[in-house]
Amino acid sequence: MQSAQIEKMLTHHLVRNLPNHKVLDVYLYASLPGGKLFRPHLVWSVLRDLNPGLYETSHADLNSNHSKLSSGVEFHHTYTLLHDDLPAMDNDLTRRGKPCTHIAFGEWQALLAGDGLLNISYQLLSKINHPRAQELFRLFSWALGPKGLIHGQVMDLAHEMTESFANTLRTHELKTARLIQVAILGSAIVANPKSGYSTEKKLWKYSRLLGVNFQLIDDLSELAETELSQHEKDVNPWLHFPEESYKETLRGLEQFGKLSKDLKLSHTDKIVKDYYAKMLSLIVPNKEIINSHLKGKLDLAPVILMMQIFGDV
Amino acid sequence: MQSAQIEKMLTHHLVRNLPNHKVLDVYLYASLPGGKLFRPHLVWSVLRDLNPGLYETSHADLNSNHSKLSSGVEFHHTYTLLHDDLPAMDNDLTRRGKPCTHIAFGEWQALLAGDGLLNISYQLLSKINHPRAQELFRLFSWALGPKGLIHGQVMDLAHEMTESFANTLRTHELKTARLIQVAILGSAIVANPKSGYSTEKKLWKYSRLLGVNFQLIDDLSELAETELSQHEKDVNPWLHFPEESYKETLRGLEQFGKLSKDLKLSHTDKIVKDYYAKMLSLIVPNKEIINSHLKGKLDLAPVILMMQIFGDV
Repeated sequence: MQSAQIEKMLTHHLVRNLPNHKVLDVYLYASLPGGKLFRPHLVWSVLRDLNPGLYETSHADLNSNHSKLSSGVEFHHTYTLLHDDLPAMDNDLTRRGKPCTHIAFGEWQALLAGDGLLNISYQLLSKINHPRAQELFRLFSWALGPKGLIHGQVMDLAHEMTESFANTLRTHELKTARLIQVAILGSAIVANPKSGYSTEKKLWKYSRLLGVNFQLIDDLSELAETELSQHEKDVNPWLHFPEESYKETLRGLEQFGKLSKDLKLSHTDKIVKDYYAKMLSLIVPNKEIINSHLKGKLDLAPVILMMQIFGDV
Repeated sequence: MQSAQIEKMLTHHLVRNLPNHKVLDVYLYASLPGGKLFRPHLVWSVLRDLNPGLYETSHADLNSNHSKLSSGVEFHHTYTLLHDDLPAMDNDLTRRGKPCTHIAFGEWQALLAGDGLLNISYQLLSKINHPRAQELFRLFSWALGPKGLIHGQVMDLAHEMTESFANTLRTHELKTARLIQVAILGSAIVANPKSGYSTEKKLWKYSRLLGVNFQLIDDLSELAETELSQHEKDVNPWLHFPEESYKETLRGLEQFGKLSKDLKLSHTDKIVKDYYAKMLSLIVPNKEIINSHLKGKLDLAPVILMMQIFGDV
């Protein structure tokens, strides 16, 4: 699946679900061009791995179930970014190389567009034609609600995340992994309603490990700058819990590498490998800078090696 | 249905759907004690009118479909209040006689609790056991999303609402009526999945008229203060379009009075009458003040009379 096709789907669903009004510009600005589009890419790669026939017939169809699911997942992600960036939360000025939506359009526009994107993500889910549609709705609203993703945001903003490494992992699991988990498990369920409990349980575990690892590697790459922001110093787990972050990253890479082989997710591996390749291109040339923030306490070589083995670069 | 029972349900669903964490206090503070609880009362009265047997077996059951529906509707209403009150939106300081949630707990808590309540409202909907559950999800996410309730908020904040009386009516329809419409139609569908297209169409029209009228009467009652806030002066339709507001209010009272008789919604009428009685108690003793804001241009007697006839007080 090309990113351009995913973006075409996002545009299609925004135009369909927004009124004919200039507010559409706010939603388009916030959603496009997308970032890495990691989550919708995962939705499609899981479909391709688990039901290649359905992938063939649906990847070019703007109104297919997976088009709705992958766009819904991405809109959900975008809503969290819009709200996270607001002055009341992280107070960021730029996102994806351009001014944040609240800078470009004003705060109330960004706040309401966030609410709107959250609604659209449920609206798209509600239009999935599938025997397990209601189950998907239950899964998503539980995983992304106040016991899920939103509690990760609370733990972060309440500074509970850095109180212990267990809290860091829990925050990563809720704030980052949950959406990746519903993207992957949701796609698998829609791909094959009878995939079975054992496979679904493995997918849930695989995607949790992937989400937490994704976030830890992302945190590591954030140290590739000579000057760190105060916020980075406050929250980056590699600064607060270097040993634990290191061990958990290695453990995660190993474990989900195994699970991925077991589940035969070859296209999904490709998406993950592309992500590691990108992260390595940030981390490897800046190893010295990263090490200086870690006061040379860690030997990054094994982590890089593991990423290279898994990332195959 | 007693308000105390509705509040018991709200507490029950919050405790079930929040983590065991002090963040629960934010949600409880924002949701309880409730205001008029107009929307959940409507959910229950419609059930009582359309399926008294089901009302009897479910009104004391905290986990009944209607408990989930009525609580979901109220949580959705509460989320809009939390976000509307934020400095980025209306910048209000008090709500229901106490400091707004963002004043009491801080802005990010109010913002995230709003997101959480929005999620919980969908979560409760997803747990309704009913042959038309997915249809309800489609109806709610359409009516309350960026083409519905949220577009009403956009029209208000973009000052499009006061550009014409048609825009005022459209804003009232989207921002106020849509949630009342899904409360009433949603309750009817869950009460009787086979209520039929013709009845459902009438209920949709009835509830739209009720929602718009509810808001116009509420706007009128806001003029019962000698000193009006700048915001009130900017947006109150009775100041901008006195004749049109007057005619539309009379027309609405008449029309939905008729529809209500046709639909035999006697318990629902009672809820509406209670609302009018409350509004009359604000309007009648302050008729002179209201008239002074309207520069004596309108004879309020017929509106009051219509409310009294309908309100039976």
